[in-house]
Amino acid sequence: MKVKTREGIRDFRTVWMEGDIVKLINQPLIPHRFEVFECKNHQETARAIKTMVVRGAPAIGATGAYGLAQAVLQFTGDFSAFPDFLNRAEQTLKGTRPTAYDLFYATDRVKAQVLKARSLEEARETAKKASQDYADKSAEQCRKIGEFGRDLIKDGMGVLTHCNAGALACVDYGTALAPIRFAHQQGKDFTVFADETRPRCQGARLTAWELAQEGIRHFVIADNAAGHFMQKGEIDIVIVGADRIISSGLTANKIGTYGKAVLAKENGIPFYVAAPSSTFDFKSEEIPIEERDGDEVSHMFGLRENGETGKVRITPKESPVKNPAFDTTPARLITAFITEKGIFKPGEINQLAEKD
Amino acid sequence: MKVKTREGIRDFRTVWMEGDIVKLINQPLIPHRFEVFECKNHQETARAIKTMVVRGAPAIGATGAYGLAQAVLQFTGDFSAFPDFLNRAEQTLKGTRPTAYDLFYATDRVKAQVLKARSLEEARETAKKASQDYADKSAEQCRKIGEFGRDLIKDGMGVLTHCNAGALACVDYGTALAPIRFAHQQGKDFTVFADETRPRCQGARLTAWELAQEGIRHFVIADNAAGHFMQKGEIDIVIVGADRIISSGLTANKIGTYGKAVLAKENGIPFYVAAPSSTFDFKSEEIPIEERDGDEVSHMFGLRENGETGKVRITPKESPVKNPAFDTTPARLITAFITEKGIFKPGEINQLAEKD
Repeated sequence: MKVKTREGIRDFRTVWMEGDIVKLINQPLIPHRFEVFECKNHQETARAIKTMVVRGAPAIGATGAYGLAQAVLQFTGDFSAFPDFLNRAEQTLKGTRPTAYDLFYATDRVKAQVLKARSLEEARETAKKASQDYADKSAEQCRKIGEFGRDLIKDGMGVLTHCNAGALACVDYGTALAPIRFAHQQGKDFTVFADETRPRCQGARLTAWELAQEGIRHFVIADNAAGHFMQKGEIDIVIVGADRIISSGLTANKIGTYGKAVLAKENGIPFYVAAPSSTFDFKSEEIPIEERDGDEVSHMFGLRENGETGKVRITPKESPVKNPAFDTTPARLITAFITEKGIFKPGEINQLAEKD
Repeated sequence: MKVKTREGIRDFRTVWMEGDIVKLINQPLIPHRFEVFECKNHQETARAIKTMVVRGAPAIGATGAYGLAQAVLQFTGDFSAFPDFLNRAEQTLKGTRPTAYDLFYATDRVKAQVLKARSLEEARETAKKASQDYADKSAEQCRKIGEFGRDLIKDGMGVLTHCNAGALACVDYGTALAPIRFAHQQGKDFTVFADETRPRCQGARLTAWELAQEGIRHFVIADNAAGHFMQKGEIDIVIVGADRIISSGLTANKIGTYGKAVLAKENGIPFYVAAPSSTFDFKSEEIPIEERDGDEVSHMFGLRENGETGKVRITPKESPVKNPAFDTTPARLITAFITEKGIFKPGEINQLAEKD
């Protein structure tokens, strides 16, 4: 992704490894400051996942892969003690966030390859390559989503997106933001409406920042305003990401997605979900909804006038909060899924399982 | 309305007059501090309207009525100079907020009665009585809305409301909150879901505070979460207020109301609008939508850990904001209107004009 720095526009990934150091864009500081966060060992990498220096399922997956590789690179003991060490490092990384499937998938994948090595030297080489391959493949999937999805965006359109399904949630490009990036690179003239996405405001903070970096015309709107702009004819297409999609097409994504899908249907606006095929879960029949800390609703985090970041309380202390992090959108409200393998209608997604 | 003070639970109106002092609940400090704001003369009363110490159309109307009475009570010149003074005071009060129709209606009404007085003494008595009558009538309308509406709320229900259509927006009781207050007084056991109502968070700040003062069970939710709770079957009725209702039944209210109405329809949940008959505008054919300052979206106001109130910035400085303050909900999404004259379906509201 493009980032405006003092040295000019530079290209960044959300997570990468230099030597045995895992580096991350420090996301809680975005959009107020751009800083690279360095994790010197896999314990620090685990802590960065837990404290949400990095968030977004694909980005967490890649960070886990690099974290395990980092542990392997830094192991100095006897090769006979290596399998035990690897297990402990894996548990440290997996014990950070319970829901992101990608974290488990990615660390399992790197570990399985490393365990085949017959020497420490070979284990190190394997770990380096496996983690890099994982991140590269993840970025490549998003690039393809961008290529397949860009044709849906036409000159003059208003494009609504919800939350941050951008490069910051992935290794690069994003899911919902990839078609937007690629349509912009084609020189198309369109306007993005970014829902602020309370409670954590990933739209107002992260999506707006990514769009500003790329020079894509956009407006931040309150989540409440999306319906009004649909009614006024200012929104022509909705593109969102997904956290999990099951075989019926039922799609879990950030809270509020369901409401935008209902409003899109009411106003005759196509509603697309952009996600790599790894987000499709053909084994489950329902999706559990995570209830998060009420502080996310009762407080707001941001930049104070003195340049420091901090929180303010909004609600009365006596008032309890309910804070479901995700909701589910039924397939009948979804026009199609944009994947790295093409665009599939809800009735066609079983092809994604067969192709694997 | 009930307010928990150090001296126990006391009953307050949003605005009242003691002697020639206009007193207001200082609303920007709610829910963090309860303070009474004193306006020593009509210029201070005008400033309190302008700076939103008081907000909500009915509350602003009553404040304007008291403000004009205050000016009359404090006039010390010759009676021949009184009409000119009255005009200037009226203009000072009317020049504060452009959209609230109640402010113009209320000051016109007090002025017309005062102008009939044949002495300063009579003018003072008339002003005192006319402003008090206006406030009493406004409170009484809300009380009747509460009585008509309370039967819609049954034991075990989940009640969704949006924004603050409570006592703080009126002289007392509220519009949407009046049926909720009265159902609670009947001993009914139900749960209120209060949309936080970005950008100004009147739900999270004011509605939650009112409900907490009355001991009514409630949860604050992100605006994004309302659809999820409807889908889960936790919401059985939606009651909102209104800023203006035209003869087609098209209803302007706080941004986000339209979205909740569409979601209610989708989920088969009745959607009620509570408003006094003075909110019905049978002369207009459309409703202009006010676009407010983008700072309301890019920043959030609240209480810091050190006990001071202040703002934090959420969005990148480069990202523009669109901030429509209201949206319009078509009659087909509205089950009925709860008024001080009874409950009317959208096709029946012409009776409200005839009855006047």
